[in-house]
Amino acid sequence: MDFLLFLIFLAACFGAGATGALFPPGEWYERLEKPSWTPPNWVFPVAWTSIYLLIAFAAARVAPLDGSAYAMAFWALQISLNALWTPVFFGLRRLKAAIPVLGVLWVAVVGATVTHFALDFWAGLAFLPYLTWVSVAAALNIKVAQLNPDVQPYDPGAVESA
Amino acid sequence: MDFLLFLIFLAACFGAGATGALFPPGEWYERLEKPSWTPPNWVFPVAWTSIYLLIAFAAARVAPLDGSAYAMAFWALQISLNALWTPVFFGLRRLKAAIPVLGVLWVAVVGATVTHFALDFWAGLAFLPYLTWVSVAAALNIKVAQLNPDVQPYDPGAVESA
Repeated sequence: MDFLLFLIFLAACFGAGATGALFPPGEWYERLEKPSWTPPNWVFPVAWTSIYLLIAFAAARVAPLDGSAYAMAFWALQISLNALWTPVFFGLRRLKAAIPVLGVLWVAVVGATVTHFALDFWAGLAFLPYLTWVSVAAALNIKVAQLNPDVQPYDPGAVESA
Repeated sequence: MDFLLFLIFLAACFGAGATGALFPPGEWYERLEKPSWTPPNWVFPVAWTSIYLLIAFAAARVAPLDGSAYAMAFWALQISLNALWTPVFFGLRRLKAAIPVLGVLWVAVVGATVTHFALDFWAGLAFLPYLTWVSVAAALNIKVAQLNPDVQPYDPGAVESA
């Protein structure tokens, strides 16, 4: 594996993951009604860090291979939507608008998993925890949106600090 | 050019670009002190739409080529940071924290431009408007941060709507 290539893909992951540090869940999230199977808070950063390392590894293995065009396209799509989801959910608090973002992210991760498996067994395998986690996250987002119908979205226009 | 490939890369662009619609500049941005050479508002969506079409075209041309690994890694890095910048600047209103995001984005776009040019002349050319625009955006971000030292960042934890 080309280590520099791995680092560039990992930097892309941390760019997306930075949204989690910039828009932390905080008290607002604590107070939301959540289903009983919601993972404890410490699981989320551990899961995401592991997933980012795994998919950067997968991309670094697959990118140099012939026929990796679709794998790279799905990889790019998933990282863009990954970066988008957190500001929509935790930034804007638009619980319902976050669902289609996760829906398209889920499709992108399925596409990435299939196309990585087609080229390299270990790269495909490295995408499975992500696919599992995005499925859990999607179920959690849908359930939280149902349980908290009255959450006020944050309207940036309404905060007038000059 | 593989049109489906183009559409997947374009979807990645629109994922990143959605942050611009979700965190609109609005009155807050209007009231910021800005340098005289700030482009008029209508230029921004036109520039970004053109850039997204051009870089999706570039990726679709380069992704199927041998030796495109680094081009794809830089493409992934730039789209992740592109998605990150808007929530930091317009969402969190952290004018200074947005500068290093644009700095790394600028490096990623330089990397993408060089690696795309190395494989395909038209793909490299398609990255030049992006490189120009990110340079302008970086200069504008730095200047706006200097001109508005007292802007209050938005603290999500302080807004307590349950």
